[in-house]
Amino acid sequence: MEATERSQLRRLPDRGSHESEVIHKILDDGFLAHVGFQVQGQPFVTPTLYGRDGDTLYLHGSAASRMLRELDTGMPACVTVTLVDGLVLARSAFNHSMNYRSVMAFGTAKKIADAAEKTRALHVVSVHVLKGRWKDVRGPTEQELKATAVLRFAIEEASAKVRQGPPLDNEEDYSLPVWAGVLPLKLVSQEPIPDPRMVEGVEEPEYVRNRSDRA
Amino acid sequence: MEATERSQLRRLPDRGSHESEVIHKILDDGFLAHVGFQVQGQPFVTPTLYGRDGDTLYLHGSAASRMLRELDTGMPACVTVTLVDGLVLARSAFNHSMNYRSVMAFGTAKKIADAAEKTRALHVVSVHVLKGRWKDVRGPTEQELKATAVLRFAIEEASAKVRQGPPLDNEEDYSLPVWAGVLPLKLVSQEPIPDPRMVEGVEEPEYVRNRSDRA
Repeated sequence: MEATERSQLRRLPDRGSHESEVIHKILDDGFLAHVGFQVQGQPFVTPTLYGRDGDTLYLHGSAASRMLRELDTGMPACVTVTLVDGLVLARSAFNHSMNYRSVMAFGTAKKIADAAEKTRALHVVSVHVLKGRWKDVRGPTEQELKATAVLRFAIEEASAKVRQGPPLDNEEDYSLPVWAGVLPLKLVSQEPIPDPRMVEGVEEPEYVRNRSDRA
Repeated sequence: MEATERSQLRRLPDRGSHESEVIHKILDDGFLAHVGFQVQGQPFVTPTLYGRDGDTLYLHGSAASRMLRELDTGMPACVTVTLVDGLVLARSAFNHSMNYRSVMAFGTAKKIADAAEKTRALHVVSVHVLKGRWKDVRGPTEQELKATAVLRFAIEEASAKVRQGPPLDNEEDYSLPVWAGVLPLKLVSQEPIPDPRMVEGVEEPEYVRNRSDRA
């Protein structure tokens, strides 16, 4: 993608990228976005699940959601996805950092009216969040589709920022007897908790037991 | 805290809270914030580390950071912290959800000019992100302090949202032979990676080995 004034990487451009491949990979490794929009001079940042199809992100929620209603007016929005990879512990306070991968995507969103298209978009989100789940569950009824707002967020511009690797200290600090390195962090699945009201004899699906750990 | 038009919980108010205790606990359990602000009609959402002291959040970064420079003009901002606790797998696609705790805080930020106060604020951030670390490292020089912008974000209003527990399905769906429950997710420390350039004989600090797992 091309960099404009809006998406230009200001700080540490060596950490940044406008390559679609890098951007798509980060968006696919995450599932939680923070969506920024402004209403009457006040910015809001709302966490939400999403799915990706090409340069489109699908956001969904209640038809009564303020965020989705506001975004549907066509106002400019920013969707940011951040994956935390670790704390970077340097020898000096100043050089402490975080290893992470993030994408900041700019664009506008529009509600999907067509029921079939809406269902397809919800399928994209479901597959994105937990692959394998959709085929096992009862699909949405007409009434449920009406109560759900699904937005197509078209990415107009985006940039990625990535920091990896060990701390970078001032040359004279390397001789200090301070523990330095990276404390990796990872969002990991824990032991599944079956619903107490589940009917007997239902097997735990493979995608629940072996969800690939993603941020 | 009092709820106004800005922080009023629109959707699912049973999930929401304006209690300071709840809000502070979530802010203390997290360390990564997403900061929303608008520049020339375009919203931006930037991930950043933070520290908390009462109803003040400290944000820091390079003195050249666009976000920090813009916020310092006194524009309204939104700081959102989201902790992901799990995927909620219902019997119907419609009732799928996420267990999470989040805080949306509104206010304005101002750069700290005084060097001693700046150092105190950086100490708050350091303790917040990794308790025990600050005392082990070389503190900031005058030059480094100048190159660092530290902002005091005064929380004027905030709201918390929390979803916990099993899926809530439609009564008629409970008999479906579908695996339902919660897949808990947790941001967990992994094996520390010592810097290859570390001087010999430095012991791994207890806070690196036994960081309490926080989102």
